[in-house]
Amino acid sequence: MASSRAFTMTGGDVAYSYAKNSTIQRDGADAVKELIRQAILETFDLKCLGFDTSSTSVVKIADLGCSVGPNTFFSIQNIIEAVELKFLQAKNQNLSALEFQAFFNDHYENDFNILFKTLPPRKYFAAGVPGSFHGRLFPKSSLHLAHLSYALHFLSKVPKEVVDRNKSNVLNSSDKEVVESYSTQFKSDMECFLNARAEELVPGGLMFILAGAVPDGISASDTMAGLYNDVIGSCLKDLVKMGVLGEEKAKSFNVPVHLATVTEVEAVFRTNGNFSIEKMEKFAQPMKTPLTPESYALAVRAGGDGLFRNHFGDELAEQLFNHFNTNVEQNFPKFLGVLRNNLNLFIVLKRI
Amino acid sequence: MASSRAFTMTGGDVAYSYAKNSTIQRDGADAVKELIRQAILETFDLKCLGFDTSSTSVVKIADLGCSVGPNTFFSIQNIIEAVELKFLQAKNQNLSALEFQAFFNDHYENDFNILFKTLPPRKYFAAGVPGSFHGRLFPKSSLHLAHLSYALHFLSKVPKEVVDRNKSNVLNSSDKEVVESYSTQFKSDMECFLNARAEELVPGGLMFILAGAVPDGISASDTMAGLYNDVIGSCLKDLVKMGVLGEEKAKSFNVPVHLATVTEVEAVFRTNGNFSIEKMEKFAQPMKTPLTPESYALAVRAGGDGLFRNHFGDELAEQLFNHFNTNVEQNFPKFLGVLRNNLNLFIVLKRI
Repeated sequence: MASSRAFTMTGGDVAYSYAKNSTIQRDGADAVKELIRQAILETFDLKCLGFDTSSTSVVKIADLGCSVGPNTFFSIQNIIEAVELKFLQAKNQNLSALEFQAFFNDHYENDFNILFKTLPPRKYFAAGVPGSFHGRLFPKSSLHLAHLSYALHFLSKVPKEVVDRNKSNVLNSSDKEVVESYSTQFKSDMECFLNARAEELVPGGLMFILAGAVPDGISASDTMAGLYNDVIGSCLKDLVKMGVLGEEKAKSFNVPVHLATVTEVEAVFRTNGNFSIEKMEKFAQPMKTPLTPESYALAVRAGGDGLFRNHFGDELAEQLFNHFNTNVEQNFPKFLGVLRNNLNLFIVLKRI
Repeated sequence: MASSRAFTMTGGDVAYSYAKNSTIQRDGADAVKELIRQAILETFDLKCLGFDTSSTSVVKIADLGCSVGPNTFFSIQNIIEAVELKFLQAKNQNLSALEFQAFFNDHYENDFNILFKTLPPRKYFAAGVPGSFHGRLFPKSSLHLAHLSYALHFLSKVPKEVVDRNKSNVLNSSDKEVVESYSTQFKSDMECFLNARAEELVPGGLMFILAGAVPDGISASDTMAGLYNDVIGSCLKDLVKMGVLGEEKAKSFNVPVHLATVTEVEAVFRTNGNFSIEKMEKFAQPMKTPLTPESYALAVRAGGDGLFRNHFGDELAEQLFNHFNTNVEQNFPKFLGVLRNNLNLFIVLKRI
């Protein structure tokens, strides 16, 4: 619980809030907008879902790991427009009787107050659902569509073996046993995630997943996420050397994230058995909005602020962020260089 | 919108939060616990609701105007236990396949973060639904049970005529036109409320309403809520005399609440036509927890803090509360005296 709590995006109205620093994720959502539309038109089978016989149709959609707006609102709106088009194309469908219910899910610590207050004018009924998507969140067969954007890499916890061995995935990122433990945790978490969704999605229901992944054959350190871990690790070592941070405190810091390889991701979906893989596309990380050292530093803080504060306390977390920012500024060409290795996966799963 | 925003209970962790100062409401919930249980056992028709033919049963419950815990959790838990008992008593029901989804509704300004973080261990799926219950909140035919506790008196807005005539229901509480405008607003709001619920509840679905009401033949000023308005009005006049508060600011202050008479409440339910009235019971305000001037002052602030701060600003609101508290202390026997006039109504409506 403690570690899954930790990786909640920063809410509120601060400069480094996720709402204000999520253009990387927005560029990704933009890139898959048309892919989601196509998938709904081709794969969302109204007859199989029972919508052809019902007088009123309520389509239920969940955005899992939604954080706060505006990206989640954009994705829900896109899905709704595609479903409306699908209904419009189908014969004998009464579009005026069509209603949508959108469920916004994230951890209990997510800023739902901000999420609700920033809901745009909309034609759907909105609800917030607190809890980890590694477990059940919804009743059986109660969803038609689920969406998960850049959240697959969050683990439910730091792997037990890593904690027991007093290792850290930022200080010991190339330690094979650490890497293996994270990979095992990822597989186990994905199994829980897929089994929960298999219960919640109706047969014929679709799930869209947009996720970062490490290309096969490239070391994690040569990707943005891997470099991030390494630089955080190096900053921690510096702070220990400076006598600001205790060694034990540094050694016990882990980021509960596993950026899986393409092969790893494919494997978890293929072995689950509750879903058919309707589509799996790879594409380079879309970066319509040019990355600067400042925007990258803010994005990192929007993601990691809670995690760092929980472990190090406010003052040390502040020092760590400052040190990290200096490091990013000095080595920014290196960050831009690994960007080309960042791969995105877009996956469409259908509940069998 | 502005006035309906205003009457959100106080969230957060302050001394005058609703969570810490809602024993009056809790005593009421306790008093109707057994009545709700009985109503479900007698009136919740599993066959009519289609639960006898379905292999999995998901029962969907909404608490409207839930504020924050613990009262709302208590009420939902009570409803769930009664439904389980009903399923247990019915033949051919697979209790292990029974699931519950509970929707917690209140205004956008409600503290949903606190609500979610204080959710108890539970056997239901929880969701928060922001928005006014005077409008639609849920898709068509998507609820089996709805619950509304001490929230019927909140209006969607201060009546337009009252604003236009620059009157106030605390300064002009005995002005017949003011009273009439509030009564008309109440009828209109109730019609919106009932029409929205009629769309959302499945045929055979039940709605439980616990509400305060003025006994017929007794003037509003002789009830707790009426006295409250009068004392607030008198405090405002004092602050104006003291030169602390501008007259216009005082005159434009209204509490968007109408404590209806028993006859008024009965009338709105009888005229709507979408529901059958299965039960309507009157009983005296239950007060298991003895009221003190201090507990009453805190309860008033838990309810009115946001409303007063929005209109007067923090400093003046603070002065007003202090003045109000002194008044309550000095006149507490009067408050206790009118308590005996406080009537509670418990109503069970069934969607036709």
